[in-house]
Amino acid sequence: MGTEAPRTLRQRRQDTLARLNHDLDAWVASADRDGNAYLVPLSFLWDGTAFTLATAESSPTGRNLSSSGQVRMSVGSTRDVVLVDGAVETFSREAVPSDLADAFAARLWDARVGTTHYAYFRVTPRRIQAWREENELAGRDLMREGQWLV
Amino acid sequence: MGTEAPRTLRQRRQDTLARLNHDLDAWVASADRDGNAYLVPLSFLWDGTAFTLATAESSPTGRNLSSSGQVRMSVGSTRDVVLVDGAVETFSREAVPSDLADAFAARLWDARVGTTHYAYFRVTPRRIQAWREENELAGRDLMREGQWLV
Repeated sequence: MGTEAPRTLRQRRQDTLARLNHDLDAWVASADRDGNAYLVPLSFLWDGTAFTLATAESSPTGRNLSSSGQVRMSVGSTRDVVLVDGAVETFSREAVPSDLADAFAARLWDARVGTTHYAYFRVTPRRIQAWREENELAGRDLMREGQWLV
Repeated sequence: MGTEAPRTLRQRRQDTLARLNHDLDAWVASADRDGNAYLVPLSFLWDGTAFTLATAESSPTGRNLSSSGQVRMSVGSTRDVVLVDGAVETFSREAVPSDLADAFAARLWDARVGTTHYAYFRVTPRRIQAWREENELAGRDLMREGQWLV
């Protein structure tokens, strides 16, 4: 492990944005008020500022995100980690801004239609970390308090 | 997506055990008592019955696992999902059974030594689910209440 030299902050940001723009799925961790953790894979759209997710309004993830207003999600593999802590804004499918749902539909699917009642979740990142191997744990913060460090 | 026919339960169990025996890392979701979700990649050892994890005792994951006694973790990618809900037993590095720590060391590293104070977490699965694409969501349960379904 860790034969490559650690990437610069600038390189990590570039690699991270490439993942956010091209990857389809994230692992989405949430928790209920009793402290039960939940984890599912969900597809996402990154618009340069925030992520959009959609999942069934009544699913554990849907309920946890709307009640807690926060999420921790990962993009990439366990050896090419991008970890995002974000603030969540929830939209029912009736109340979702149409530009947001249209952009999501153009890349993924139209979650406004169908028998399952989906909700949309707009995730604004507050912290982003990225590392590959142990030698990159130092300097893994790319964003803190919503601000890119480079 | 979903061009392959859904796998049988038997095939999913076989593929899942292959992952548990050969993969090195899991995404480990935990939560604190205030309902804050946490997520990190951790290496694991699967011994045929349970997983062993090790992480710093004072880290968020270490504290959450030892206080909640439960975990939700995934092995594999977002398009080849293995999801495990498990009960967690925590061992300090002073109290860890030596066969458990020795087996972990043989595959990963010896978490009993060093300046960082690690703890060991033995995760006994209660539920295991596996699916690749949407056409495999039906029949995704491989284990319920600690019992393999096949």
